[in-house]
Amino acid sequence: MGFADIFVWEMLGTATLILLGVGVVANVNLNKALGFGGGWLLVAFGWGFAVFVGASVADASGGHINPAVTLGQAIAGNTPWDAVPAYWIAQFVGAFIGAVLAWVVYKLQFDAHDKPQDTLGIFSTGPTVDNKLWNTATEVIATYILLIWILLSPGASEGPDGSVFGNAALGYAGVAFLVVAIGASLGGPTGYAINPARDLGPRIAYAVLPIKGKGTPNWQYAWVPIVGPLIGAALAALTYLALPV
Amino acid sequence: MGFADIFVWEMLGTATLILLGVGVVANVNLNKALGFGGGWLLVAFGWGFAVFVGASVADASGGHINPAVTLGQAIAGNTPWDAVPAYWIAQFVGAFIGAVLAWVVYKLQFDAHDKPQDTLGIFSTGPTVDNKLWNTATEVIATYILLIWILLSPGASEGPDGSVFGNAALGYAGVAFLVVAIGASLGGPTGYAINPARDLGPRIAYAVLPIKGKGTPNWQYAWVPIVGPLIGAALAALTYLALPV
Amino acid sequence: MGFADIFVWEMLGTATLILLGVGVVANVNLNKALGFGGGWLLVAFGWGFAVFVGASVADASGGHINPAVTLGQAIAGNTPWDAVPAYWIAQFVGAFIGAVLAWVVYKLQFDAHDKPQDTLGIFSTGPTVDNKLWNTATEVIATYILLIWILLSPGASEGPDGSVFGNAALGYAGVAFLVVAIGASLGGPTGYAINPARDLGPRIAYAVLPIKGKGTPNWQYAWVPIVGPLIGAALAALTYLALPV
Amino acid sequence: MGFADIFVWEMLGTATLILLGVGVVANVNLNKALGFGGGWLLVAFGWGFAVFVGASVADASGGHINPAVTLGQAIAGNTPWDAVPAYWIAQFVGAFIGAVLAWVVYKLQFDAHDKPQDTLGIFSTGPTVDNKLWNTATEVIATYILLIWILLSPGASEGPDGSVFGNAALGYAGVAFLVVAIGASLGGPTGYAINPARDLGPRIAYAVLPIKGKGTPNWQYAWVPIVGPLIGAALAALTYLALPV
Repeated sequence: MGFADIFVWEMLGTATLILLGVGVVANVNLNKALGFGGGWLLVAFGWGFAVFVGASVADASGGHINPAVTLGQAIAGNTPWDAVPAYWIAQFVGAFIGAVLAWVVYKLQFDAHDKPQDTLGIFSTGPTVDNKLWNTATEVIATYILLIWILLSPGASEGPDGSVFGNAALGYAGVAFLVVAIGASLGGPTGYAINPARDLGPRIAYAVLPIKGKGTPNWQYAWVPIVGPLIGAALAALTYLALPV
Repeated sequence: MGFADIFVWEMLGTATLILLGVGVVANVNLNKALGFGGGWLLVAFGWGFAVFVGASVADASGGHINPAVTLGQAIAGNTPWDAVPAYWIAQFVGAFIGAVLAWVVYKLQFDAHDKPQDTLGIFSTGPTVDNKLWNTATEVIATYILLIWILLSPGASEGPDGSVFGNAALGYAGVAFLVVAIGASLGGPTGYAINPARDLGPRIAYAVLPIKGKGTPNWQYAWVPIVGPLIGAALAALTYLALPV
Repeated sequence: MGFADIFVWEMLGTATLILLGVGVVANVNLNKALGFGGGWLLVAFGWGFAVFVGASVADASGGHINPAVTLGQAIAGNTPWDAVPAYWIAQFVGAFIGAVLAWVVYKLQFDAHDKPQDTLGIFSTGPTVDNKLWNTATEVIATYILLIWILLSPGASEGPDGSVFGNAALGYAGVAFLVVAIGASLGGPTGYAINPARDLGPRIAYAVLPIKGKGTPNWQYAWVPIVGPLIGAALAALTYLALPV
Repeated sequence: MGFADIFVWEMLGTATLILLGVGVVANVNLNKALGFGGGWLLVAFGWGFAVFVGASVADASGGHINPAVTLGQAIAGNTPWDAVPAYWIAQFVGAFIGAVLAWVVYKLQFDAHDKPQDTLGIFSTGPTVDNKLWNTATEVIATYILLIWILLSPGASEGPDGSVFGNAALGYAGVAFLVVAIGASLGGPTGYAINPARDLGPRIAYAVLPIKGKGTPNWQYAWVPIVGPLIGAALAALTYLALPV
């Protein structure tokens, strides 16, 4: 698949992911939205099913929609290294576009929000306790789980009775349940970026969009959700290569 | 498939959808219902699984149960244009019938409700901040996501290990997860009609049913959840035709 | 399949269903349980997934675990009429056993509960507003939806691209999502029995078990969740026979 | 499959399970975590989907990740008895490692927690009302349901219309829904260990980790979530052997 095709599919898929993902956090956090105060399970299902929709849309290019997934698949030998730039560029561009669209969807609610300076968390992740080393560790472990499942999740196989078994038949619902699990369980300390594009694209959008009364984009933290997920994905891919598969 | 068959299946499926969809909002909003105060995730799963049930019931006619879906499928070339009127008429009639049935189910709770003038939101959608242009934009984007997934969601394909992959095996659960995602993420500003019949049918029912102490059907807003979804569906179908599928 | 086999499977499956179903309501209602105050979505998923587990266990006999399902399948011609008594007897016996087991699981929490006279609702259904006619109508409509989905839900079929489509691949998760939908949407007025055994078995258990400080089993209401579901199932089966399937 | 392979897969899978499972309880209980106060449904989905991820990762060894499952499968004749020690050792080691990793993920939130002496419940289970006999009964019944489903859940079979039916196509999502059901319904009295490794591994981790201000590991209770699940699994396997399968 050439650069243009990879770009189109990954851009479209990542934009869909971020539109829905930023959307659910806006819905829970903006006091004029119907989902205001909806709780962490709503956030976890919102992001999980956002991956379901976004990855389905980007199925033609493998549904990566995450630079850490692309890195892990490249290390594991499933994606050619020379395709990686196309994936990464598309994912960051798509993430930016998705965040802009989410702002359009919630424009009136952003304008009417009672704490407009506290809206960065709708776009990008951040730690509840600031410590770059431990925050990075959290992102490394969470992304490790993401990639180890993606690399090991079983295709369909036949049982002794001729029955088909395995996660393959779940389609992208499998990765959705995985992301719900990661959000529910490992999202508490840093908001689970587990995807460099998911964090940086919306952070740039927050910096440039005319959001009424907005706060700072907190650039000091911006490297953690880029570096942590890439390290976690690389470690998972190396584990995968070492396993007796 | 002839007019009568399309009419029967789409009418039955849309009535099922609206009975369950209006039902969940009644359950959450009526103070004598067991689900009172159940929160946005209950609403999102309620509507999402209502689509699962309704579309399954209307499987024989393709499970559209939404005039915007029919329009998108017609533009995409999957539904013949001369079948569109049968779909649309059935969907609006079914939506009206479903709303009446939901009122029958909750008749005693409507009668006992402490704020009967605020019950329009159980039947039809409305914005938390009134601005027809931005409200329409929200419905356009939300319906675009609905249709782009429906048009692009992958059928079953075979992996290198003979495993089956793709969303096809999910049946109508795939579209249910999609609608949960749209509700969780994009439903906050306007209540996500994303379906002209879903909004107009129950609005007419609200206008004509003898609901104790009811308020106004708010006809001024009624065109937004018709026009927005149709535009969004058309844009998604045109995107689909332009993509290198 | 003979009487003994039907009896074993339906009894085991229905006992599993009611153990889990009564269990989730105990968890939400008993003030010493960890799920206390867990909300309606927890109840809806609890009962829905209870059907998933119970019907899977009773797969050998078709996974009815509900006299209304058996009636509907008999009218639709899918279950022989002379097998109906075995199904029904097993279902009522299993429901009683499941309720006893749920009481064993929560024995200490029942003993420690602060409002022991209000525990009937853990075992059996009841209306929030008492009116036998409208309560029956609610159960009729809710059970109609249950059966119309069961009778119409599509098996696997092949799409033009060779993909498999349909709900069949969902296994019993399909009926679980259906029951979550019914609970979320139509359970608000009467607690959605939609199953005569689900209500009567636990009601008898409540009457005979030595539950500390228990209240009345409310026999006046007991016929509604028997008659309503049977009527609803019969109407759905007659609809099915009349449809151009 | 030899000792080393079983050890690697079961250790990796159980570590994943416990990382995610302990993680979700940390998220709900630590006052500096984003999921604080998230409720029982979040816990139930968190543990259920943790099983989905962990069992998928351990698919090569059958995805047991639970000594009670291994015992049940051995009694049922599906796992050779001489493989059981490899499974058990790997499961306990993996559970310990998973608990350590969950502590790393939430290290800053543990340090900042306002009630550090009450954090045992994040790692291990415990009863809301202490009575070893009844607590054991609860664990026996809950684990019986776990195993009876695993042993009886139907593989894919073909319907009269050529449709595929059965839970097999759900992959590990089937067991996830089962565990959500058990947690929602039977987890209220004791926190549903239903897995000796799930309880003992994290309890040892709690005893040895330098958790700031931690309380006692409550060794008096530690045998209940070992003995109860093993008895329940054995009873389910014996039932399975007695059934007319």
